[in-house]
Amino acid sequence: MPYFDAASAAPLHPVAREALLASLDEGWADPARLYREGRRGRLLLDAAREAAAEAVGCRPDELVFTPSGTQAVHAGVAGALAGRRRAGRRLLHSAVEHSSVLHAAEVHAAAGGTVAELAVDRTGRVAAGDVAAALTPDTALVALQSANHEVGTEQPVEEVAELCQEAGVPLLVDAAQSLAWGPVPGAWSLLAASAHKWGGPPGVGLLAVRKGTRFAPQGPRDEREAGRSAGFENIPAVVAAAAALRALRSGPAADTEAVRLRELVDRIRTRVPELVPDVEVVGDPVRRLPHLVTFSCLYVDGETLLHELDRAGFSVSSGSSCTSSTLTPSHVLRAMGVLSEGNVRISLPYGTAEADVERFLEVLPGVVRSVRERLGVRVAEPVAGAADTAGAAPREPVGAVAEEPEGVVVDALGRRCPIPVIELAKAIGQVPVGGTVTVLSDDEAARQDIPAWCGMRDQEYVGERAAERGAAYVVRRRA
Amino acid sequence: MPYFDAASAAPLHPVAREALLASLDEGWADPARLYREGRRGRLLLDAAREAAAEAVGCRPDELVFTPSGTQAVHAGVAGALAGRRRAGRRLLHSAVEHSSVLHAAEVHAAAGGTVAELAVDRTGRVAAGDVAAALTPDTALVALQSANHEVGTEQPVEEVAELCQEAGVPLLVDAAQSLAWGPVPGAWSLLAASAHKWGGPPGVGLLAVRKGTRFAPQGPRDEREAGRSAGFENIPAVVAAAAALRALRSGPAADTEAVRLRELVDRIRTRVPELVPDVEVVGDPVRRLPHLVTFSCLYVDGETLLHELDRAGFSVSSGSSCTSSTLTPSHVLRAMGVLSEGNVRISLPYGTAEADVERFLEVLPGVVRSVRERLGVRVAEPVAGAADTAGAAPREPVGAVAEEPEGVVVDALGRRCPIPVIELAKAIGQVPVGGTVTVLSDDEAARQDIPAWCGMRDQEYVGERAAERGAAYVVRRRA
Repeated sequence: MPYFDAASAAPLHPVAREALLASLDEGWADPARLYREGRRGRLLLDAAREAAAEAVGCRPDELVFTPSGTQAVHAGVAGALAGRRRAGRRLLHSAVEHSSVLHAAEVHAAAGGTVAELAVDRTGRVAAGDVAAALTPDTALVALQSANHEVGTEQPVEEVAELCQEAGVPLLVDAAQSLAWGPVPGAWSLLAASAHKWGGPPGVGLLAVRKGTRFAPQGPRDEREAGRSAGFENIPAVVAAAAALRALRSGPAADTEAVRLRELVDRIRTRVPELVPDVEVVGDPVRRLPHLVTFSCLYVDGETLLHELDRAGFSVSSGSSCTSSTLTPSHVLRAMGVLSEGNVRISLPYGTAEADVERFLEVLPGVVRSVRERLGVRVAEPVAGAADTAGAAPREPVGAVAEEPEGVVVDALGRRCPIPVIELAKAIGQVPVGGTVTVLSDDEAARQDIPAWCGMRDQEYVGERAAERGAAYVVRRRA
Repeated sequence: MPYFDAASAAPLHPVAREALLASLDEGWADPARLYREGRRGRLLLDAAREAAAEAVGCRPDELVFTPSGTQAVHAGVAGALAGRRRAGRRLLHSAVEHSSVLHAAEVHAAAGGTVAELAVDRTGRVAAGDVAAALTPDTALVALQSANHEVGTEQPVEEVAELCQEAGVPLLVDAAQSLAWGPVPGAWSLLAASAHKWGGPPGVGLLAVRKGTRFAPQGPRDEREAGRSAGFENIPAVVAAAAALRALRSGPAADTEAVRLRELVDRIRTRVPELVPDVEVVGDPVRRLPHLVTFSCLYVDGETLLHELDRAGFSVSSGSSCTSSTLTPSHVLRAMGVLSEGNVRISLPYGTAEADVERFLEVLPGVVRSVRERLGVRVAEPVAGAADTAGAAPREPVGAVAEEPEGVVVDALGRRCPIPVIELAKAIGQVPVGGTVTVLSDDEAARQDIPAWCGMRDQEYVGERAAERGAAYVVRRRA
């Protein structure tokens, strides 16, 4: 059963499993104690710290273990901001950071700090020049991920680190997604990562704070982990995490595997748009994580798609709003300005079989077709954009469709993604070239997906105006 | 090799080990995901939560898992205080709480809250009447441990919970030390505990917040654990922790074992003072944890004592200042007003062999004697208190000893515990009955141990006055 969601959590690496078992017997005691069981634990902890520091590219005394990558980010952001309080209270982060960075930023803003967001381009990448321009004198900290967790795009971390260093501002790098593939280069000041992303067990994050970085840990502290992460050390898990990281890095296997997975991902990137109509593959095609690719399918309900793929034996994730408990689609896809409906993220674990990828490519077209059929969307041909009514479904349009002086109004109020876009696609064929379709929608995803649809179908997105409920999105037919 | 420090960390319970191994394979994926691996993880997590809630005596939706007992306390105290902010900002806790409560209280005080401490008697117990008197209208939260981690004394939690309920103030119970032995009775509002104290793996704490308790989680949050504990769930460890707790509780084994260990501890409590001269066994002899006992040995350096016991094969811990990296002795022993030097805490793990306890009782007298001999203290007879110079060591007294109008002055500046008390014991024989010995000391432990010594040796502790360096402690010879 192929599991293609390594970016959420990778299965435990066999080396990690072995190390965990051994250290359950050797590393359960309190490493602060003077007796033999405590000393043994301390030795294990020290060795794990050395191994992790080597993999990260820092000194062992610069690195602490935390209970999760999330807590590493929370502690790193809060401690760096407090340490730089005299310099200013402005936090600068990219618009596509992991939610742990956004949550830490919210707490900072609630406490009176300011937060500024760096925009990304359509591939999800920050421009280093934008960082340079945004480095105001009161900037206390910059947070930039090494690579994006949803679309795989790598950020120009080394360049940004240099700019930050010149400006005397610390850079915190969330390396959760990339550390399995190698250390983060450059003069970053803080780095956070999460072991269960690289085949370590859950329960281990790491936070590196390079010497010379002002850092004032926040919240209640104890004597553990240099006062930077409170609570009894989880030595067996830490030992296992370090062992897995070292195993990934030792020998040429990691590089070979990165090359192999990169080729498999390239295959997915090329073939999915050939096999499935109306698909947008997103993220940078070259400057990206080796194992991760994301695409979005027009006129598809993300939750149903995931469910059908699961039934077909494939475990993948999605940034569509229809799959989560919130009504908001992925902030990453929104910041990139790309389609969020029918979104699928594939992240291949180490050792993924080529045959499993091939089988996925065989299965996907049928699954997407069946989901579209259930939504009343015609398959195997462009759904909209032609002069005829291609894409108009056999069933009746949703809500009231009224012809107005300026065109057709589609009432999709109360309907969730992907219905508003499907209705738009049906209606566009009903207006002449130059005419407009106005979609009324209170679904948050429409704000993102209607402009994205226009880009994909070469229609003109006129804009959005307020409506009694939700918003009115206006599209002009080009051809 | 007998390990007698279960109160720090208990070895992994075999059932926990088995459950951990099984769930490493079944529970590594993200339980928030919709695919089969995620659903499997969710099922494991839900089952663990039900089992833990049953053992705690709360509803499953009242209980969240945290990465440690420490973090459960930190989150519980902060969330309860914030939830009650309108009622007041006063935190009331006993003077003998675990450091995690004290650290949370420090953060509260630093943020402008007020903190009041409840005194304990010489056994370490809070008087419920004192709580009633201290429940001012602006009290937002009371924190009281179920049983003390250093001396084993049980607190009147059920009675205090009732008082709190009447006053409409929530009670947070730190049950870290007692949960292995049974649920905490009474109408508490919040409860925190730590799995590695009951034979679960490290990396798991639990926080129960009963319905109706105002609670506002602090710090960055995510969607995990009802927004009360951020970071990827550690399902294998949580499953193992719940399995161990259930195993301890099922059948009559737990009660039988509690009775057996209680008898072994009674044996230690009775025999240690018979075997070793100048020992004080502390804590409540009856209302106590079954497996824990603490005693302090006069004229003994705690670090050397622990080291020698370790060499003899016994792993124990100590609240003496000379064993920790700080210069302050245990705040618990200080609050009780008992001796801190030469302190030994024994906490027997489940299944401790009677023969190991017997061997400890055989070994201890010789170990204490050898430590005293190295410090130049005569053994096998009262060291001070007789009219002659019993206790005066063969080597020279430390520092300058000057006769002053009011008696003898002992300069122990720069010397650490237990030297100031040893020098006092030597000097008391040099003054006539009614004369005084003044000890100059800058060791924090002297403040606690000189009065405690006076109590043990029936000498009069006159008081303390400021000195150029440290303090001057005045003792009057009684007999």
